[in-house]
Amino acid sequence: MTQDRLARQIEFLLEIDQLKSVYRRSYLLSQERHENSAEHSWHVAMLAMVLAEHVDEPLDVPRVVKMLLIHDVVEIDAGDTFVYDRAAAADKAEPERKAADRIFGLLPEDQRAEFVGLWEEYERGDTPEARFAMAVDRLMPLLHNVHTQGRAWREHGVRCGQVIEVNARIGASSGRLWDYVRPLIEAAARKGHLAE
Amino acid sequence: MTQDRLARQIEFLLEIDQLKSVYRRSYLLSQERHENSAEHSWHVAMLAMVLAEHVDEPLDVPRVVKMLLIHDVVEIDAGDTFVYDRAAAADKAEPERKAADRIFGLLPEDQRAEFVGLWEEYERGDTPEARFAMAVDRLMPLLHNVHTQGRAWREHGVRCGQVIEVNARIGASSGRLWDYVRPLIEAAARKGHLAE
Repeated sequence: MTQDRLARQIEFLLEIDQLKSVYRRSYLLSQERHENSAEHSWHVAMLAMVLAEHVDEPLDVPRVVKMLLIHDVVEIDAGDTFVYDRAAAADKAEPERKAADRIFGLLPEDQRAEFVGLWEEYERGDTPEARFAMAVDRLMPLLHNVHTQGRAWREHGVRCGQVIEVNARIGASSGRLWDYVRPLIEAAARKGHLAE
Repeated sequence: MTQDRLARQIEFLLEIDQLKSVYRRSYLLSQERHENSAEHSWHVAMLAMVLAEHVDEPLDVPRVVKMLLIHDVVEIDAGDTFVYDRAAAADKAEPERKAADRIFGLLPEDQRAEFVGLWEEYERGDTPEARFAMAVDRLMPLLHNVHTQGRAWREHGVRCGQVIEVNARIGASSGRLWDYVRPLIEAAARKGHLAE
């Protein structure tokens, strides 16, 4: 029984190696290449650990970290969806659900249920932990753009209004982080890093 | 005061983007490229979350996850050291200490002290959390080698005795994981994936 549990766990852990080959629209700050979803997951977990004090509601930080570490695993099958691509966002629900069933389904049942539950909570965004996880998942790509002269924004013709709309969700978790971010977006628009 | 704290935190979070450009000796399972230390940190944090039930002593799993997320940040300045390179391992203490001072020193003092403390605990390996963190940090590269016909081992002429010696630390945290791993090493040696 234990041997079977361990074999399933190892199979899952080998399978998720593929998240390192899912590339996002964001560039590294060095601009040498696009960022992949595994290293992105590490980075946003670091944001959660460092920035949690700025959140407006009590929350369980380790739960946020866990949620962020698994939140993109479904992209192994479903691919990454650019946050400014509305049509793609609308179509991603079913492929991501199937991916969650397949990939988390490699795990023993108790762990499958826990991880699927965390992923669903993140997607719903209806708890303090999910709101903060979503906030840092928005914040880091925004910082990547701000510090690369809006490179991914410019390549995809993203407009200032879209950036404000998408990132306003940061304010649902932390007014302070949103207050910090909003002038960065406005400055990017003034510098011509965002479409009109 | 809060603005200054936030500015320092963001500076740290931008700085650690560079961990995505520190490449290790390990290959991805797809073998398309070497693994970098940021995605490796994500992967071993996932191992800690999934495999904690196999540890022989009570431990605080969120603390292990936190330790693993930060344990390689010093490599931004000090570079990655191949675990089988004894000479390099002996020389890495001072550069890594300087790196910890500089990089974690970007953070507000309370967070600097916490992160340096976690990194030192990992390096000492003298708590249940540090032992398990080190165990999964050994386990994943071993699995990468086992599932790529020993590619990094073969490229660096690593011997079976070295692999057993280095990975025996897995057993200091979990007898069950070590029992799982040891036959994999022996099988790799039989298949000629390790030097004599």
